[in-house]
Amino acid sequence: MSPILLNSMEKEHNDYIKQEYVKNPHLDGMEEDILYHFNLSTKTHNLPQMFGDVKFVCVGGSSNRMRSFAHFILEQLKLPGNISDVRDICEGTDRYSMYKVGPVMSISHGMGVPSISIMLHELIKLLYHAKCRDVIIFRIGTSGGIGLPAGTVVITEKAVDSFFRPQFDQVVLGKMIVRSTELDEDVAKQLLQYSTELPDIPTVIGNTMCTHDFYEGQGRLDGALCSFSSEEKFEYLRKAYDKGVRNIEMESTVFAAMCRVCNLKAAVVCVTLLNRFEGDQISTPHDVLLDYQQRPQSLVAHFIKKRLGLMS
Amino acid sequence: MSPILLNSMEKEHNDYIKQEYVKNPHLDGMEEDILYHFNLSTKTHNLPQMFGDVKFVCVGGSSNRMRSFAHFILEQLKLPGNISDVRDICEGTDRYSMYKVGPVMSISHGMGVPSISIMLHELIKLLYHAKCRDVIIFRIGTSGGIGLPAGTVVITEKAVDSFFRPQFDQVVLGKMIVRSTELDEDVAKQLLQYSTELPDIPTVIGNTMCTHDFYEGQGRLDGALCSFSSEEKFEYLRKAYDKGVRNIEMESTVFAAMCRVCNLKAAVVCVTLLNRFEGDQISTPHDVLLDYQQRPQSLVAHFIKKRLGLMS
Repeated sequence: MSPILLNSMEKEHNDYIKQEYVKNPHLDGMEEDILYHFNLSTKTHNLPQMFGDVKFVCVGGSSNRMRSFAHFILEQLKLPGNISDVRDICEGTDRYSMYKVGPVMSISHGMGVPSISIMLHELIKLLYHAKCRDVIIFRIGTSGGIGLPAGTVVITEKAVDSFFRPQFDQVVLGKMIVRSTELDEDVAKQLLQYSTELPDIPTVIGNTMCTHDFYEGQGRLDGALCSFSSEEKFEYLRKAYDKGVRNIEMESTVFAAMCRVCNLKAAVVCVTLLNRFEGDQISTPHDVLLDYQQRPQSLVAHFIKKRLGLMS
Repeated sequence: MSPILLNSMEKEHNDYIKQEYVKNPHLDGMEEDILYHFNLSTKTHNLPQMFGDVKFVCVGGSSNRMRSFAHFILEQLKLPGNISDVRDICEGTDRYSMYKVGPVMSISHGMGVPSISIMLHELIKLLYHAKCRDVIIFRIGTSGGIGLPAGTVVITEKAVDSFFRPQFDQVVLGKMIVRSTELDEDVAKQLLQYSTELPDIPTVIGNTMCTHDFYEGQGRLDGALCSFSSEEKFEYLRKAYDKGVRNIEMESTVFAAMCRVCNLKAAVVCVTLLNRFEGDQISTPHDVLLDYQQRPQSLVAHFIKKRLGLMS
């Protein structure tokens, strides 16, 4: 094999690595990339050294919850060190919190599509700069259930918008672009299969509706604004149920769409905090809520341990 | 005046107070209202006692910044107590941070329309339950500038969407409702007038574009995804400039729309962290950014002191 051919193949291989996650021809021309909302940069941080071994990324809304998850994973994977060593990598900013425990990252994304989309742009660039490969990303969150008892875990089959369409509408330079919200089918199926090994965690697979608002958009009667009747609310929720929607949250469509475009295998695993056929307010006691919130974490931790060969 | 007439007038007066901020006929029938994302409730907290004297509410994305603002206001209004007494009222949750200093509340709202809209629903209900009157609300934030030097404060004349329209599209039960994003003209004018008394704070009035994304939606070339050229980016930004847009952020349209529907006088005051005609990345040194972020706070504090008669 001539050196020229070798170089050419190496180049192709490097291109392949580089192009695995980001879809932006402008990035390679940048001398420095500041991941502003993470308070990280390619000049001030050695991203390949810090993150090169990452294989699983878990994201969720609340920073406290994602810190707890990092502690939980440390214990589950039986890694050396103790929880006081698990530090917020983004501690210079309060926009997001980020933890890394062995091959697992745990990152908060705040509430709503815009907030998670900023995080995902910078995370995907981070994985690219760090030359990560074969990463699986999970959103582990909370949601309102439809026709399910509170505490049920829903693995998302299709992420749909407020009109029950499996799509995400992205505005680019004042023009609307429609993106598919298909998630990784194999990961979803495997999660469902593993859930049968966790008898205390009732789990279903179903569609997840993503709204841009917690009150009017989700048909709640208890917001500051409400212009519809109880009957109209139930009609909308029943329609959603008939379309296969089993839970409602606020991030899944953009999460699915961006991960799909960027070739990141992605799954959404959310617990329901209430059954919306029974009410709008989240009045469950605090300790029960904490137990519910642990369930997606336990299922995803179980998946990770299986993948790492730590369980038969 | 007969007792019956008196009762009737009292009823009308009470109705008026009750209806001042919320627009939801269902609220009065609720035995308890849990403001879930604030970790407050009408049953567990005496909201009129805690918040009845509030006259100014200042909101901004970052929780650290809103804590600093509470400390700043304590000092500016020369109120008794010291900063260690200023506690996060929402410390039981990490969704938002909330501080109260005399008649001023300072609350964080995270990033993006959905995140601020959850906060506003619960804030407006809080003001209603606490029987607050004559409140003015300010969003004090950061933004990207168009054709302005970094560090310029922009008072929003009109909040416009990505298509330069002064409207906010709200999905209610799967149907699109269009709301006006008009802000309080008098408050904006007065802010501009007061800014002339603060010579170190360059201030303009102009339109503010609200997007649902920091990267593709704002025409940045440095996201994980980018499918447009530098020329197309500049064309879009120039078009925005020609439509009177002087800065871009991610919350103003829903903030304006909800406050307008709920009769809350509202203003948006954001500092620009960069000039988007010159770049996309925020590479300004940390201490300069801190100085910039202080500017909307100083202008709004000046306004509050004037209104409270603490300055001539």
